[in-house]
Amino acid sequence: MSGTELARAIVARASEKAAEYTLLTGRKPCLATVIVGDDPASVTYVRMKQNRCHKAGLESRHVALPESTTTEQLVAKIRELSDDPAVHGILLQHPVPGHVDERAAFEAIAPHKDVDGVTMHSFAGMSFGHNEFVSCTPGGIMRLLDAYDVEIASKHAVVIGRSPILGKPAAMLLLARDATVTICHSKTAGLAEIVRTADIVVAAVGKPRFVQGDWIKPGAVVIDAGYNEGNVGDVDFAAAAHAGLITPVPGGVGPTTIAVLLEQTVEASLRQLNA
Amino acid sequence: MSGTELARAIVARASEKAAEYTLLTGRKPCLATVIVGDDPASVTYVRMKQNRCHKAGLESRHVALPESTTTEQLVAKIRELSDDPAVHGILLQHPVPGHVDERAAFEAIAPHKDVDGVTMHSFAGMSFGHNEFVSCTPGGIMRLLDAYDVEIASKHAVVIGRSPILGKPAAMLLLARDATVTICHSKTAGLAEIVRTADIVVAAVGKPRFVQGDWIKPGAVVIDAGYNEGNVGDVDFAAAAHAGLITPVPGGVGPTTIAVLLEQTVEASLRQLNA
Repeated sequence: MSGTELARAIVARASEKAAEYTLLTGRKPCLATVIVGDDPASVTYVRMKQNRCHKAGLESRHVALPESTTTEQLVAKIRELSDDPAVHGILLQHPVPGHVDERAAFEAIAPHKDVDGVTMHSFAGMSFGHNEFVSCTPGGIMRLLDAYDVEIASKHAVVIGRSPILGKPAAMLLLARDATVTICHSKTAGLAEIVRTADIVVAAVGKPRFVQGDWIKPGAVVIDAGYNEGNVGDVDFAAAAHAGLITPVPGGVGPTTIAVLLEQTVEASLRQLNA
Repeated sequence: MSGTELARAIVARASEKAAEYTLLTGRKPCLATVIVGDDPASVTYVRMKQNRCHKAGLESRHVALPESTTTEQLVAKIRELSDDPAVHGILLQHPVPGHVDERAAFEAIAPHKDVDGVTMHSFAGMSFGHNEFVSCTPGGIMRLLDAYDVEIASKHAVVIGRSPILGKPAAMLLLARDATVTICHSKTAGLAEIVRTADIVVAAVGKPRFVQGDWIKPGAVVIDAGYNEGNVGDVDFAAAAHAGLITPVPGGVGPTTIAVLLEQTVEASLRQLNA
């Protein structure tokens, strides 16, 4: 099962549940997408997410704010969406412009609407093994590992990268599944040697072909969560043919990310129904 | 500088700041301690914390609840303290009785009064390198490392244990200081070999003399955060003489824990003054 096929399966299931929600309520699960400024890549991403919503029977409500938006204005807008009972999930497209306090904006998302898994609450929930929303890319990674029946417990997982929405939550989700987890980053000494000890490698660096083939232990599972210019991942894919399993870029982790977003939005709508 | 001396220095500084607070306000920084049931060890710990407060010029307000207290009752009591402007910090002595939802109780502590660093908010703050309250034992560990001028950046730190108030936050604080961090636990395979690669070992297992001397790389820094019956730590101290530095039990990490609690209570009182 490729990442694309897995994503399709997740979305199909989410779509069924969305239809159930609609049958029950006469409304659709609704994802609010918020974008600040007009960065072309961000605009494309958001449009893609909206399209996927529509295809899967979800509603999307789009909020486009000008580049000049202040932190206070953005926080106020997100709070408004957090308080709006017609909105079930909120996605703030990031990065936001440099003058905006991204963390403050994320924290304005109510935890029960944090379907992108970016709040401090969601991060701690992932870390403590609660059943809360997960960051979508790490969530997609876990789904891929499970789809391929990769054993996680007692395995050594090395996560390269420590961002709050990718490396750190991926490490925490692997730990919650009983992996022994090493978190590496730009200040790590002897990175190649450490990666060579890994049964599972998660590359989340954002540098094209950064992870070399000879860093990979034969048979290791390699998850490439990178997506760099020219459609290349963080791992030198061609040189890593001796990996037990390696996700391609594109078509690996990427598609599962949006699928998890949709799935969590539907889940949020159902939970809010019962709340 | 021993752990005891370091703790004394931290408390002396906190005591000075408490006096400043009192000069400004005519009141003392106030720590509320909450205990459920009458477990003798917990009663002793809480009494010790109260005594330290008084000696340092802090006020302590003690809330003793019966063993039969429900989650709802405990949460309501803690919320009351969270809303009480005369209380600056809240400590819920744990473990709480098995029928109580400890996490729900912790989460009733307002983040700005979480001087014991147990809330999800504080955990995420530690993980993301924010300047918020830290879990007291991990906070004490970092103070010890700094007191001994231990280099942390780019070093390999192995944390054994993954509890939400000790192992995980210790790992996150070390990561925030640019260590490469491996988190090990009861399901870890090949623990001895992994520990042998560590420049810094944090033992937070709660098993007497669990970490063997020959697991320790010569010159490594060993922080023993364990405290087991018979006054012994998690590390076989006598067998680890080849460590570069090793904290004793008792007199190592232990005293710094309460010192950080007092320091953070005073800090909370000052922050609440400016809020």
